[in-house]
Amino acid sequence: MVQSVAVIGAGLSGLSCIKTCLEEGLQPTCFESSCDIGGVWRYKEEFEPDRANIYQTVVINSSKEMMAYSDFPPPAELPNNMHHSEVLGYLRLYAEHFKLLPHIHFKTAVQKVRQTPDFALTGQWEVDTEKQNGQKETHVFDAVIVCTGHFTHPHFPLKDFPGIENFEGRYFHSWEYRNTNGMEGKTVVVIGIGNSGGDIAVDISRVAEKVYVSSRSGAWVLGRVGPGGLPFDISFSRMDQIWGSFFPTRVTKNVEKMLNAHFDHTLYGLQPTHHFFARIPVVNDELPARILSGRIRVKPKVKEFSGSSVVFDDGTIIDKVDVVIFATGYNYNFPFLPPELQNKSGYRLRLYRHIIPPSLAHPTLAVVGLINALGSVNPMSEMQGRWATRVFKGRLNKSVCMSTYDSVEYLNPLYVFFVPYLDSLAKEVGVLPNFLWLFLTDPRLAMQVLFGPCTPYQYRLTGPGRWSGARQAILSQWERMYEPFKTRVVPEPEKKNKFKLKVSVILPGTVLLCFILYKRQLLPKLSLM
Amino acid sequence: MVQSVAVIGAGLSGLSCIKTCLEEGLQPTCFESSCDIGGVWRYKEEFEPDRANIYQTVVINSSKEMMAYSDFPPPAELPNNMHHSEVLGYLRLYAEHFKLLPHIHFKTAVQKVRQTPDFALTGQWEVDTEKQNGQKETHVFDAVIVCTGHFTHPHFPLKDFPGIENFEGRYFHSWEYRNTNGMEGKTVVVIGIGNSGGDIAVDISRVAEKVYVSSRSGAWVLGRVGPGGLPFDISFSRMDQIWGSFFPTRVTKNVEKMLNAHFDHTLYGLQPTHHFFARIPVVNDELPARILSGRIRVKPKVKEFSGSSVVFDDGTIIDKVDVVIFATGYNYNFPFLPPELQNKSGYRLRLYRHIIPPSLAHPTLAVVGLINALGSVNPMSEMQGRWATRVFKGRLNKSVCMSTYDSVEYLNPLYVFFVPYLDSLAKEVGVLPNFLWLFLTDPRLAMQVLFGPCTPYQYRLTGPGRWSGARQAILSQWERMYEPFKTRVVPEPEKKNKFKLKVSVILPGTVLLCFILYKRQLLPKLSLM
Repeated sequence: MVQSVAVIGAGLSGLSCIKTCLEEGLQPTCFESSCDIGGVWRYKEEFEPDRANIYQTVVINSSKEMMAYSDFPPPAELPNNMHHSEVLGYLRLYAEHFKLLPHIHFKTAVQKVRQTPDFALTGQWEVDTEKQNGQKETHVFDAVIVCTGHFTHPHFPLKDFPGIENFEGRYFHSWEYRNTNGMEGKTVVVIGIGNSGGDIAVDISRVAEKVYVSSRSGAWVLGRVGPGGLPFDISFSRMDQIWGSFFPTRVTKNVEKMLNAHFDHTLYGLQPTHHFFARIPVVNDELPARILSGRIRVKPKVKEFSGSSVVFDDGTIIDKVDVVIFATGYNYNFPFLPPELQNKSGYRLRLYRHIIPPSLAHPTLAVVGLINALGSVNPMSEMQGRWATRVFKGRLNKSVCMSTYDSVEYLNPLYVFFVPYLDSLAKEVGVLPNFLWLFLTDPRLAMQVLFGPCTPYQYRLTGPGRWSGARQAILSQWERMYEPFKTRVVPEPEKKNKFKLKVSVILPGTVLLCFILYKRQLLPKLSLM
Repeated sequence: MVQSVAVIGAGLSGLSCIKTCLEEGLQPTCFESSCDIGGVWRYKEEFEPDRANIYQTVVINSSKEMMAYSDFPPPAELPNNMHHSEVLGYLRLYAEHFKLLPHIHFKTAVQKVRQTPDFALTGQWEVDTEKQNGQKETHVFDAVIVCTGHFTHPHFPLKDFPGIENFEGRYFHSWEYRNTNGMEGKTVVVIGIGNSGGDIAVDISRVAEKVYVSSRSGAWVLGRVGPGGLPFDISFSRMDQIWGSFFPTRVTKNVEKMLNAHFDHTLYGLQPTHHFFARIPVVNDELPARILSGRIRVKPKVKEFSGSSVVFDDGTIIDKVDVVIFATGYNYNFPFLPPELQNKSGYRLRLYRHIIPPSLAHPTLAVVGLINALGSVNPMSEMQGRWATRVFKGRLNKSVCMSTYDSVEYLNPLYVFFVPYLDSLAKEVGVLPNFLWLFLTDPRLAMQVLFGPCTPYQYRLTGPGRWSGARQAILSQWERMYEPFKTRVVPEPEKKNKFKLKVSVILPGTVLLCFILYKRQLLPKLSLM
């Protein structure tokens, strides 16, 4: 019977895993190598090796209601798409509210995780840790949850770029980028147009002489600002997802058409070869205007470097390049795990349901948060933690399927479909609401759950971990979205009530007309009475 | 008979006025107080008093084809919305191409402009100049064109802000703003949400701790990126203008609806009390996303300052404000003009057709470029120059109307309607094309002129100053718009030819169906043959 659980990392995923362990009656011990919680959301003035590092201007792609912990709605006054400092603030509130901090050992790095000699019998793990003062310890745990994320080991494929070794300018990975300091008046080439590449190019384009973004395969670009100015990610409901599963081609085409109506991806040189839902799109509100104004120029794949020049696949050359930034993404490395668990399929660990290595005799090790989707990571990693702790406790029998693992795409190995993935885990945990029952018993709530944004509170309405505040959290989510805008209140324009118009004018009018026609015997066959 | 003309200022308007004088056989002498051409478009690292000053990130609101000189299309490779450095580059090309530089006296400031003692007889002017080396001169000219713009004298209404005199932070006018240096980590309040206020707030919000924008009356905000990613200002054709003049309310409502579909101005606290066409809107592509992410917070009018706090009209208070930037616009001052010409109606000079002071016995002084519209200033100031030189030469008799001047709105005194204003001057100059004739003789061109963007080349097709390249400039304008995007060429997606589909499938299908029905005598009354 699992009792003690090691949680490695106190970022966004680690925190919810500690909380879930407590909820499930387990004893969590969290090891965090740095001095604070937050993981990727803890901004550091200077970049730190072996850790996730973000730049100064990072704003979260997901809106606050979509990235919320399922039983801890963000304060109403927080902006919808939070700055990294505000995300960290929210994580602090969560950690304090659920008293998670006493379970975290700061400045304690995990060196090795290995199966105990009697693992076959007990399913236990030995965890070697080292404190910043050099003190080493070995602990034994019934289970381990790895929450170290996937932004710690940069993918830096220099061997694919002939001539880089003699490049006369400066070059570095986006992981090291902090802010525009030192970029003033420079000619900069950013390689890769993922979320980092796009953000960094926009950032630098405000101070640099020229900025080029090199893209191998293009990208779909969408903004955080959705229809009417509300966050884009709340504009898709559960019903949209169901609709989309019936007509995937139609929905894909509609989304692509909408994005091209904003700006023609072919004209802008960004049209990808893949369709919209095949990969994570780039979230960037400013890129189109920067391209239109020539502050950013999109270029094809880099072929080679020569002196201070960059040669592109189409034969064009940019001379006197001062800085090259490789926004080429991250590798998924877990050096502390046993080698046999590090078997990779393409870029990724082999993980059943993106969580548990299928080769284990006892499913007592889980990787949480090693995933992405067209949706926030937070609800997914929280659900993974809830699912994993249920597996640890033997409440879910995974032995039958553990030999299989989800198929993944080479270039996008962590990608899942947001609501279907959440729902499938939620169903197994026993927290997926019965929608028919909900409609019959609480139609107002059901309307929000089905036709409103698919916020994480939905997974706290029922089953293990049920939270009595979930209903109210869902019903009040729009208020929390509107609240941060109320910094300058403008009177609502008077809207004509079309329903009232219909009832008060059209209906009596029609009745009157019918009556007149009837009286004049123009409607002889119609029995009005 | 006017021969010699003094042009004051070698900015965007001054240059086209020199060129127009040459075209009309007049002798222009341009006085420019600085060392270079460009006026407002000459960026200066340090701000210079009594001159227009722009900040480092300025990108022109109008697209290159809409802001072009009418006989000098911008090079195809220039971006559609140019950075200030590229605008200056374009002005240099223009000045060099038309050999304007020899007519410009640099480092020569105009001190006074006054009527000669025999003005009543000659209409001549005395112009006192002073070189940077102190050398003073007085020149006599037959006519004067004032092209000093309206961004040289900041409107800095400190008396409207009680407590500012004891404000503990730093405060300055947007005119002095250069870049974000010194704003890192600061709390900043920007007063006024015009184009400068919006731009500066966005700029600073990338490095500051908090940025607030205070707006008295709100604003309509639109982006440079228009439908499909093409520049917004090319999406309105001459036909749209005609359509709009028939149904002004409908068009206004449609535009406002479109802008609110992008982001709800009421929700964002920006909904103005005036309708869209009543005032110049704010052009800003980044403001909505910055508000959504809380990096910029919109606030109402500032009531007063107290210590380091700013108190707003709604009673809210922001404490520990480090910097206040007054983006409160500019005054229209012409200190070198005779006092009797400086009579103002509200904020503005009294000018017939926004050009000539009506009180003059001889119409030999013109103010050019003291205007704005929902469209580029450049084509308007060029047309004003063409009109004014025709007036100088006596080709247009303005004596009848000179006692009137255009009515203006208090808060927006320089505002005119773009195409109607251009057309009305063009008609008097004799350069407005005859559209019916154009349709009969050159339908391809006519289609572009009426249904394409209303580019300035249209005013070079006919009449005085006719340019033989105008037709080709219009027909090739789309290519010049597309060219700067071709930095990464993506193959055009194959478009299904709907017309072909109709002709090849639907038409024969319908014929076949009718034939079958006819044969089966289901269409007895239809005579097919």
